[in-house]
Amino acid sequence: MSSRTKVVDALRSTDFGKEITVKGWVRSHRNSKAVDFIALNDGSTIKNIQVVVDPSTMDAEQLKSITTGACIRVTGMLVESQGKGQACEVQSREIEIYGLCPGDYPMQKKGQSFEYMRQFAHMRLRTNTFGAVFRIRHNMAIAVHKYFHDHGFYYFHTPLITASDAEGAGEMFQVTTLDLDRVAKSGEVDYEKDFFGKKTSLTVSGQLEGELGATALGAIYTFGPTFRAENSNTPRHLAEFWMIEPEVAFMDQKELMDLEEDFIKYCVRWALDNCHDDLEFLNQMIDKTLIQTLESVVKEDFVRLTYTKGIRILEETVKQGRKFEFPITGWGMDLSSEHERFLVEEYFKRPVIMTDYPASIKAFYMKKNADGKTMQGTDVLFPRIGEIIGGSVREESYEKLVGEIEARGMEESTYGWYLDTRKYGSCPHAGFGLGFERLILFVTGMQNIRDVIPFARTPKNAEF
Amino acid sequence: MSSRTKVVDALRSTDFGKEITVKGWVRSHRNSKAVDFIALNDGSTIKNIQVVVDPSTMDAEQLKSITTGACIRVTGMLVESQGKGQACEVQSREIEIYGLCPGDYPMQKKGQSFEYMRQFAHMRLRTNTFGAVFRIRHNMAIAVHKYFHDHGFYYFHTPLITASDAEGAGEMFQVTTLDLDRVAKSGEVDYEKDFFGKKTSLTVSGQLEGELGATALGAIYTFGPTFRAENSNTPRHLAEFWMIEPEVAFMDQKELMDLEEDFIKYCVRWALDNCHDDLEFLNQMIDKTLIQTLESVVKEDFVRLTYTKGIRILEETVKQGRKFEFPITGWGMDLSSEHERFLVEEYFKRPVIMTDYPASIKAFYMKKNADGKTMQGTDVLFPRIGEIIGGSVREESYEKLVGEIEARGMEESTYGWYLDTRKYGSCPHAGFGLGFERLILFVTGMQNIRDVIPFARTPKNAEF
Repeated sequence: MSSRTKVVDALRSTDFGKEITVKGWVRSHRNSKAVDFIALNDGSTIKNIQVVVDPSTMDAEQLKSITTGACIRVTGMLVESQGKGQACEVQSREIEIYGLCPGDYPMQKKGQSFEYMRQFAHMRLRTNTFGAVFRIRHNMAIAVHKYFHDHGFYYFHTPLITASDAEGAGEMFQVTTLDLDRVAKSGEVDYEKDFFGKKTSLTVSGQLEGELGATALGAIYTFGPTFRAENSNTPRHLAEFWMIEPEVAFMDQKELMDLEEDFIKYCVRWALDNCHDDLEFLNQMIDKTLIQTLESVVKEDFVRLTYTKGIRILEETVKQGRKFEFPITGWGMDLSSEHERFLVEEYFKRPVIMTDYPASIKAFYMKKNADGKTMQGTDVLFPRIGEIIGGSVREESYEKLVGEIEARGMEESTYGWYLDTRKYGSCPHAGFGLGFERLILFVTGMQNIRDVIPFARTPKNAEF
Repeated sequence: MSSRTKVVDALRSTDFGKEITVKGWVRSHRNSKAVDFIALNDGSTIKNIQVVVDPSTMDAEQLKSITTGACIRVTGMLVESQGKGQACEVQSREIEIYGLCPGDYPMQKKGQSFEYMRQFAHMRLRTNTFGAVFRIRHNMAIAVHKYFHDHGFYYFHTPLITASDAEGAGEMFQVTTLDLDRVAKSGEVDYEKDFFGKKTSLTVSGQLEGELGATALGAIYTFGPTFRAENSNTPRHLAEFWMIEPEVAFMDQKELMDLEEDFIKYCVRWALDNCHDDLEFLNQMIDKTLIQTLESVVKEDFVRLTYTKGIRILEETVKQGRKFEFPITGWGMDLSSEHERFLVEEYFKRPVIMTDYPASIKAFYMKKNADGKTMQGTDVLFPRIGEIIGGSVREESYEKLVGEIEARGMEESTYGWYLDTRKYGSCPHAGFGLGFERLILFVTGMQNIRDVIPFARTPKNAEF
């Protein structure tokens, strides 16, 4: 028996007449009198290889038992295909059944809703759509690592269990080894007895620890899970998601914008260059403008727009009769996704890097401009997504940072280690955060964030 | 002002006579009457660039204030160095001070103990040793991704918050949004009100979910944080660490051993090829046999040894008078690190892949051999480390797996989704787990696992 050939390689091969072995799951099995056709897929590509079976070569009951979802080995000759849309097929000489598939297989039928499939997240991985999504997700992760490695950034593992709250905001999950039943019985919570001897939570961001890395190693990036205990049941929210957070010493606002634009274009270009078949499929099934949108993002220069100018444009637009669900209340307001998407999709028809937001609506660690009102933020706004990157120059002055912490009523003592970066050899630096799933939504054209992570964690849902 | 040149690039440059700008942290500053020497490092390499300052070009007090740990910009001419051990240096024309460094800087002195530095994990990143360790850690992560990507594996993000216990063992951290003070007051625990509507924990392994990926996408790997709430204060244990867990459909025991050996050799070779300066430093400062050990692992074929033969060798060795701390009690015993290291370091003087352990001492999902006693495990034992990889073929028979779950008194209903992989189109498959920090210990020569992760989580310690 020849060793296994992956379907992706078999489909590319022109070694017609050679015997090969393919292994995979049956996507469909149809038969006529003279011949059976089995479409076989092994996850290595969205395309199936067609297996042609002469029924006389196999026990009839056995052959009939090979239904959608079954797992088999096929050994046979690779031949040029007569059928349309495929270059080659396998003429089966021998089939081994690894595992049959009972009729209650939840992915039996085509065209089931994504909502239905979410209940079977462990089985939806075997469908065309989710195969495509998760191959693309893999490729985006590889692009992230390759980009940063090639640019001299170090992958830096910040802790997930933390005793601090990165942004002084955000609802957090508590992590504990206290026996809750005992807590209930005893009537008191004794953190001395907890694993870490104090109250700990799951991180909402690795940024602050990332800055520790950047101010030592020069340039780092994090890429890991992040948690928010927000009770939001929307197509945009996950309780557990993956974040990418680069931090760079000696970087200013202009360089940060260049980095953001270059990085995200690199990722999108990577998808176009490396995920052709999967994107074709999604373009056909999910969003007919997908590939065109990806291509235009790669080609166009991003608009660089101050928040102040952005507000002015929105105010003008309202004057001209445009209605928004959330009103434009003027300078100082926080933009909603609808406003961001208007600027990107309708006004500029290009991605926008919005800069210099009011300091009051942004986090304490962001560097203020000389005007004392705005800060050196650099958020990237994208079609369909709205904010895809949130970035800023970081405040490097110890005094100003302490002042900001005090002004916001935050606890200075919890930030001692963070402030040390400004106390000992402080340096100008900047960084940004990208929610990985938002990138995947953009690149796949999928609509619901629960469909671009293998096993979504949302309120009342921690299955699998 | 010319744009910034990284120290690593400046040191490689031969553009003598050209003006460059370097930015970084002062490692040392010494002066004679005529000239000051500043050793500057920016994290891009373990090597410093020497900055030569003519004191007449700068205010004397300012120049004096540039002490170890300070952060500066230097613009000046790149010149060929007269000194030993360096090719070039910078003749300063202009220095800008970004941040001074007060005298209580904790990394002031050289030769401080690792134990001392652990208390300042946020500052130790700026030392030679930890710079080297975390640049190597980065490189090992890149090697992992590159290896699997090049071999057609998909990076698969398994969930961290889980309602199941992957191996039916292991102490877990609970994750909750219940207010513990309220739990204490109310006297009861109502999981209906918890975020996920049930009791949830942090995962101890992504393997079971990884198998869901492998039996759909063909070959996947996980690489993410993993948690154990073991109250172990040893140089080997972390409460939060990173695991790599590939799973491969259609892989048998022989192929699994080949994968393990090829993968780990690739990573070690990557370190030798890409981390030369850092390894040289660690070889000199931490372990004089480090590079030699790495080279021998790459060169030698790993020994493939059944557990049964391993026990026989150990029994023979004891007969010949060798003493072990933990006695050799015969077939069926679990080997301790001391026994593993004897086989690797003294008996074979090569890494060993130990196979076919007694099924009773291993996890429920491992495939049993026909003898009914042993299972198709494939653990890799390494010098200095002991077990570095734990792998096995997975049981693909639904009936056998259910039987094993029942025999072990585990709750079958919690594994419904896992069992579905065997119910619907089951396939033979195999995989392994590698504790990332163990690999980093091996490749860096460091002794304590707390020194190869940026911010260690251990009992009573969740700082930073």
